[in-house]
Amino acid sequence: MTNTDAPKKTLVAPRTLKGFRDLLPGDMIPRNEIVGKIKTIYEKYGFVPLDTPSLEHLETLIGAGGEETNKELFRLASPEGDPIAMRFDLTVPFARLIAQYPDQLALPFRRYQIGAVYRADKPDPGRYRQFVQFDIDAAGSASLAIDAEIIAAMTEVMRALGLGVGEYQIRINNRKLVNALLEANNIADADTQKHVLRVIDKLGKVGLANVERELGAGRVDDSGDTIRGVGLERAAIDGVLAFIGVKAVSRSATLDALACLLGEAPTREAALAEMTELNAALTALGVGEAEAVLDPSLMRGLDYYTGPVFEAVLTGAPEFGSVMGGGRYDQLVARFLDQPIPATGVSIGIDRLMAALFQIGKCAKTQTLTKVLVVAMAGMPPVELLKLAAELRAAGIQTEVFFGAGKTSMKNQLSAANAKDIPIAVIMGEDELKAGTVSVKDLRAGKEARAAIQDRGEYTKAGKSGQVTIQRSELVQKVSEMLAG
Amino acid sequence: MTNTDAPKKTLVAPRTLKGFRDLLPGDMIPRNEIVGKIKTIYEKYGFVPLDTPSLEHLETLIGAGGEETNKELFRLASPEGDPIAMRFDLTVPFARLIAQYPDQLALPFRRYQIGAVYRADKPDPGRYRQFVQFDIDAAGSASLAIDAEIIAAMTEVMRALGLGVGEYQIRINNRKLVNALLEANNIADADTQKHVLRVIDKLGKVGLANVERELGAGRVDDSGDTIRGVGLERAAIDGVLAFIGVKAVSRSATLDALACLLGEAPTREAALAEMTELNAALTALGVGEAEAVLDPSLMRGLDYYTGPVFEAVLTGAPEFGSVMGGGRYDQLVARFLDQPIPATGVSIGIDRLMAALFQIGKCAKTQTLTKVLVVAMAGMPPVELLKLAAELRAAGIQTEVFFGAGKTSMKNQLSAANAKDIPIAVIMGEDELKAGTVSVKDLRAGKEARAAIQDRGEYTKAGKSGQVTIQRSELVQKVSEMLAG
Repeated sequence: MTNTDAPKKTLVAPRTLKGFRDLLPGDMIPRNEIVGKIKTIYEKYGFVPLDTPSLEHLETLIGAGGEETNKELFRLASPEGDPIAMRFDLTVPFARLIAQYPDQLALPFRRYQIGAVYRADKPDPGRYRQFVQFDIDAAGSASLAIDAEIIAAMTEVMRALGLGVGEYQIRINNRKLVNALLEANNIADADTQKHVLRVIDKLGKVGLANVERELGAGRVDDSGDTIRGVGLERAAIDGVLAFIGVKAVSRSATLDALACLLGEAPTREAALAEMTELNAALTALGVGEAEAVLDPSLMRGLDYYTGPVFEAVLTGAPEFGSVMGGGRYDQLVARFLDQPIPATGVSIGIDRLMAALFQIGKCAKTQTLTKVLVVAMAGMPPVELLKLAAELRAAGIQTEVFFGAGKTSMKNQLSAANAKDIPIAVIMGEDELKAGTVSVKDLRAGKEARAAIQDRGEYTKAGKSGQVTIQRSELVQKVSEMLAG
Repeated sequence: MTNTDAPKKTLVAPRTLKGFRDLLPGDMIPRNEIVGKIKTIYEKYGFVPLDTPSLEHLETLIGAGGEETNKELFRLASPEGDPIAMRFDLTVPFARLIAQYPDQLALPFRRYQIGAVYRADKPDPGRYRQFVQFDIDAAGSASLAIDAEIIAAMTEVMRALGLGVGEYQIRINNRKLVNALLEANNIADADTQKHVLRVIDKLGKVGLANVERELGAGRVDDSGDTIRGVGLERAAIDGVLAFIGVKAVSRSATLDALACLLGEAPTREAALAEMTELNAALTALGVGEAEAVLDPSLMRGLDYYTGPVFEAVLTGAPEFGSVMGGGRYDQLVARFLDQPIPATGVSIGIDRLMAALFQIGKCAKTQTLTKVLVVAMAGMPPVELLKLAAELRAAGIQTEVFFGAGKTSMKNQLSAANAKDIPIAVIMGEDELKAGTVSVKDLRAGKEARAAIQDRGEYTKAGKSGQVTIQRSELVQKVSEMLAG
C-alpha cells in the first residue's frame, strides 16, 4: 500500500507552536534525574501521587486564579459542545478533586502531582505556554505545622539539588499580615486592595522608588507608557513602604518589627499568631534563618491564597525569579463544596528550575544513558551483534547496537559514540568472530589520550588506545570492571 | 482580602469531563512502579528520553494517522489564531521532531517518551479520551534487526510485569506481506485495499464467518444495522481467508505456509526476505516461539505503517485487546522532510495495560508509600511531633504526621492508618514526653492479631498488641528494624 513513486507532495513544515518547545535528551535526562530526587523527598514527607486530566470544564477553571489566568486559558469545546479549557495549574484541579471524592480520599490527605500546565501567555525567552509543575498539597488541616513541613521539604529539595546555605532562599509572608497592613492603612475597597498587591508584587522588578510612584499618582515607564497609580494618600503610601521594607536578623525579629506597624488592625492578632506558630514549627524542623526568611513584600500573584505564602529563589540566578511558589488556600475547595476544606501547598516550576540550574552550573546536559555501543563492522551479520548486546543487557548494562542507514565506517561510529559520551565500544570483526574473541575499547581513555597528545603536540596511534581484545566469554565481566573503574 | 461572610455563591459542580478520569493514589502508585520497571528495560536497549508538547500545528497531525484519527482530533486555535490540535499519538510528533533537528539528533537515534494523548472518541467503559502512551522508536535505520530488538524489549517488559511464557503473546505481521496478499488476489484499488484491511482487523471481534461476509456482499449485525461489504469475488475472498487463517508450529513454518499462498505477487520476495531476516534476529535475541508468533491476520489500524507490525496481548485478559502495538513506518518522516528516514517503534497503552494487570491479579491497588504515621495526641504540641518526623525522615523513612481538622481520636487516627495500610504508628503522649520515651506500634501485627481473634472467636485486648515503649533515642533504629523484619 505504500507508494514511493507517488507524485511529490507538499511537505509539512516541521515546527513547534509559538511559545512551545521540545525537550531533547540533553535536557530531558538531567530533568528526569532531578524530578526523581524531588519525588524521593516528597514521598519522605508522606505525599502520594495522583493524576488529573489536562482538560477541565471551563467553569472549574474560570475565576479560580484571578483575571490574569482567566485571560490566559486555552479554551476549546468538548465533543458534546461544552466549553472546556486546558488547566493553568495543578492546584485548582486538586481542589476540584478533593470536593469530588469525599468517600475515597480520607482527610487529611497529602498528594504530589507532576504535570504540564498551559497558559496562553505572551511568550518571552524562557517563558513557555506549556510548562511542567511538580506540586505537593495537603488538604484537611488548618494547622500551620503543615505549612512548616512544606517549607522544610522545600529546603530539603534545594539541598538535594546541590545548593548550599546562601545559594537559595525561601521567602515567607502571610496574606493575613497583608490584610492587617491594608486595614491599618484604611485601604478598604476590594479593587484598590488588589491593585496595591499587584504594585507591591513588582518590587523586585521595578524597585522601591517606582513602587512608591505607582502606589501614588502613577509613573511613566522607560518605553514612555503611562502606568496608572493606585492614588493612595501620603500616609498610606508611607505605611505600605515601611511595612514592605522591614528587614531584621531573624524571622521572629522581623515579626516583632511588623507587629509595630500594624496599629489596631482587626486581623493583626490572628496574623501574628499564625506566623509565630509557623516560625516555631520551622525551628522544630531545623529550618535555619538563612534558609527561610520572612519577607513582607512577598505577594504571590494568584487570588486564591488566604494565609502563609512562600517562594524559593536561587540567589545566584535572581533573573529567573521564583523557582517554587505556593501558599495556603483555605477557601478554594469551597468553590466546589458546601463546606470549606483548608489546604496548602507548593509548586515547583520545573522548566524554570532547570534553566536556573543549568545557568549556575549545578546541572549539565547529558546526551545518553547508554554505556556500551556495539560497533557494526562491515560484513558482520547483525545476529552476531545482537547476541553481544543481549549478553550485556542481561547483565543490566545499557547497550545500543549501531544499525545505521547504509554502511557507516567504524571511525564514524566511534565518533558518534564520543559525541554522546558513551563510555565503551565493543567491536567484533571477522577475525574476532573466528577466534572467539571480542575487542573492548575505553572511549573515555581514548578521549583523554587524544587531549594529552594535543597538549604535547605529539602524534601517536591514538586510535587503538584503551582497546583490549579478550575472550568472548569474558565480555560482561570486562565491561562491568571498566564501568566500575 | 478573604471574605468568609460573603453572600452564598453558586457552587461549581466538582466533575471530570465525559471520557476523562482522575487517577487516585491507589491506581497511581502501582502505575508509577510499573512505568519505572519499563523505563529501566528501555534504557537497557539504548533508548533515551525526550518530550514534545501536547499541542501541535493542525497540519502536523491531520492526515498522518488516517481518517479515524483525523475525526478524533481535539482542535482549537492558538492565541495567534492558527489552527492547532492536541496530539493523538507520540509517533507523529516524533517524526516531526526527527525532521526538525537534523543537526542536534544524530542518526541512528533511539528515544523513549511517556505522555498523554487525546482522542475525541466515543467513550466506552475502559476507553478514555485522554490516555497515557509509553513509546520507544528508532529512526535512521532500515535494518530489521531494530524491529527485532523492539520485539525483544516487548517480551522483557512482559516478563518484568510478572507474566510467564503463555501468559502473553507478541503477534507479528508485515504490511509488505499484506501487500503481496492483495497483489496475489488482484485487489488493486486503494480504497478497496483499505476496506479489506479494516475488515480483517475486525477478525478478533466478529469472527471468521462475519469477516467472510464483510469481504463479500456485507451483513446485518446484531443490532439490525447493515454493514456494507467489500464486494470481492469468491476467489479473492478465499485467498484472503486462507492467508489470514494460517497457523503453524513456528514462525518459520508459518512463513513457509504463507509463501505458498502468495503466487507470483511482485512484493512477495521482499516481504518474505524481511520476515526471514526478522525471524533470525528474534532467534538470536532469544525470543521464543511461544513468546512471539507470526499472525497473518494482524493489521494495526494506523495508515502510516510500511513494514513489520506487532502487538502484545495478555492471554488471560483478551477482552482488553492489545496492550502494546507498533510497527515500521519508513515514510512518515518524509511528510516533513525531502528525504525518507526509516523508523520503527512500539507504544504501550499504559491505561489499558494497568486495567488488564489489575484484572488478572498481577497488580494490586496501593494507597500509600508512607511507612510511619506519627499520631497526634490531644494536647501534644505540634513541634514535638514534627521533631519525631524530622528524625525519621532524616533516616530516609517516609513519615506523615496526622494533622487533621479539629481533634481526631487516637483510635480514628490508627483506623485511618490501617485503611491505607501504613505499617507503623509512632505515639507520644504527655507521659512519654516527660519520660523521654516514645511508643511504636506495629499496625500490621495488630491487623493479624485482630484477624486471628476473629478466627478463634476470642476476645483479648488487641488495641495494645504489637506496641512497645522505647527510649526516644532508639526511635529510628527500632522503626528501621520493624520495617526490615
